[in-house]
Amino acid sequence: MSIKIGIYGYGNLGRGVENAIRQNDDLELVAVFTRRDPSSLKIKTEGVPVYHADKAAELADKIDVMILCGGSATDLPVQTPALAKLFNVVDSFDTHAKIPEHFKNVDACAKESGKVAVISVGWDPGMFSVNRLYGGTILPDGKDYTFWGKGVSQGHSDAIRRIEGVADAKQYTIPVEEALDAVRSGSNPELTTRQKHTRECFVVAKDGADKAKIEQEIKTMPNYFADYDTTVHFVSQQELNENHGGIPHGGFVIRCGKTGAELENTHIIEYSLKLDSNPEFTSSVLVAFARAAARLNAEGASGCKTVLDIPPAYISPKSGEELRKELL
Amino acid sequence: MSIKIGIYGYGNLGRGVENAIRQNDDLELVAVFTRRDPSSLKIKTEGVPVYHADKAAELADKIDVMILCGGSATDLPVQTPALAKLFNVVDSFDTHAKIPEHFKNVDACAKESGKVAVISVGWDPGMFSVNRLYGGTILPDGKDYTFWGKGVSQGHSDAIRRIEGVADAKQYTIPVEEALDAVRSGSNPELTTRQKHTRECFVVAKDGADKAKIEQEIKTMPNYFADYDTTVHFVSQQELNENHGGIPHGGFVIRCGKTGAELENTHIIEYSLKLDSNPEFTSSVLVAFARAAARLNAEGASGCKTVLDIPPAYISPKSGEELRKELL
Repeated sequence: MSIKIGIYGYGNLGRGVENAIRQNDDLELVAVFTRRDPSSLKIKTEGVPVYHADKAAELADKIDVMILCGGSATDLPVQTPALAKLFNVVDSFDTHAKIPEHFKNVDACAKESGKVAVISVGWDPGMFSVNRLYGGTILPDGKDYTFWGKGVSQGHSDAIRRIEGVADAKQYTIPVEEALDAVRSGSNPELTTRQKHTRECFVVAKDGADKAKIEQEIKTMPNYFADYDTTVHFVSQQELNENHGGIPHGGFVIRCGKTGAELENTHIIEYSLKLDSNPEFTSSVLVAFARAAARLNAEGASGCKTVLDIPPAYISPKSGEELRKELL
Repeated sequence: MSIKIGIYGYGNLGRGVENAIRQNDDLELVAVFTRRDPSSLKIKTEGVPVYHADKAAELADKIDVMILCGGSATDLPVQTPALAKLFNVVDSFDTHAKIPEHFKNVDACAKESGKVAVISVGWDPGMFSVNRLYGGTILPDGKDYTFWGKGVSQGHSDAIRRIEGVADAKQYTIPVEEALDAVRSGSNPELTTRQKHTRECFVVAKDGADKAKIEQEIKTMPNYFADYDTTVHFVSQQELNENHGGIPHGGFVIRCGKTGAELENTHIIEYSLKLDSNPEFTSSVLVAFARAAARLNAEGASGCKTVLDIPPAYISPKSGEELRKELL
């Protein structure tokens, strides 16, 4: 019997979830919810109805898990608690500093309804968090490093677009190879912000705009660029579209730790992602954890969980026997 | 209140566990068990008694988790079921093909006693298995690759030592860089045994031994070397001791998979270990999962588990709140 999934929000993430469901035979998409006019939305999966978001409550008994595909800034803080009153839910809430507060709000609603809510699913938070936990626990005398990229930062791209004279822009966050190598050497370096990442910007200037001024404004922008070595390239809109249209990302979580009577032995644990599409990978993680949410709830669990609380086997469609035989 | 740990077997792994316990404030070593004469054993931790293995049953109420540090060939298949009748246990059983049988035997005993047994803990099986599960589930349309090394294979070193005329030997398994790069490129290559790993042997010949014959015997040895490109270096015992005395190991688990409407996007997940001491790292994993065994049993769980069944948070001494705040 398949697990019935609803998608709540149909942007990049929602479309990624739709595709990912098609890659998993035990999952079935049964409804898509949107805040737009449902009749204006053409989805890829034939025969699946699109409803207005307001109708979600009416489908509470038709959906095993609702996957929330809204944004972390304003959508999820409201939507996840509200929908956890009706459904098992999974979200990708990624405002790290506000996770404890979000957890608390969602937990209260999910406990009240007897549903399971899995929050902050994706790769960071998500798979990176899992790896920080394993690495840091196995090697308690050590140090964690996280590097991001090479990948597109939406926030930094947006910040550039807000500058006067800029028509369009794309920003790549790039980990510094020398810093990665220093970490991998086991020397436990102290690294500044500038030493860890560089920022590369591809900018389309409006006709007649002062490029030198734009470049200066980017490079000195506090928080976003001032603390980094930043490179700015001016390109045509056509070049931006053709060569920088993707949303790649990725990164590295590295734990370097010591063991032995005199802590004489060094161990390096490295987890890395190289992703052609940031939202599609996040969607794939969401879909795997939706399976876990359904299973946990079927076993009687309720309340808010994160990737750290879920046995790895629960995200897999395979039985314990199969997993032990094939993967262990 | 600390978790009281017993160590059963005091070889490389047992000594590693003893060191690892000292790195974890919430764990306390309370007894070491050996099949040797206990009075002949000098352990590092002051004030901790050493008992003969036969006395274990008498200490059943003094120990929260017994960490079994015997070998997979003959010790653990007998010891883990037997001790699971008395204790929560953790072992590093690593004969992959026999894990389902071992699981079944241990599960029956642990269910009968109401204890938790965690088997096949370490890095492969262990952390590599966890990563195969996450990677394969998140990216179902893809392919898994495991590479081992650079590291010392005890089994291959032993096989060389059994050749006539060989006084001592050390064998390194080395992943082929070109094969790793091909996998990382996302091309999903089909790789033969020979293409994935090479084998490098450092051999001490006995006086007057026929080195050409030894080299020939190594390179043509079925299963162990015949399917690999093997290099043989003859060295003095002194050089072997000085330059090849360690037990490093490591490896890579790489998942390459596709997503998107037309599976047009490629993602690479890579997990790698670079370990100065293979047994000490395995010990550190054992100790972390001992914490999980104690916690699961305190919550009422019983029976056999593997690393795949245990929520990551359960191996950590930190609270859920701390983990969400610090790591998520």
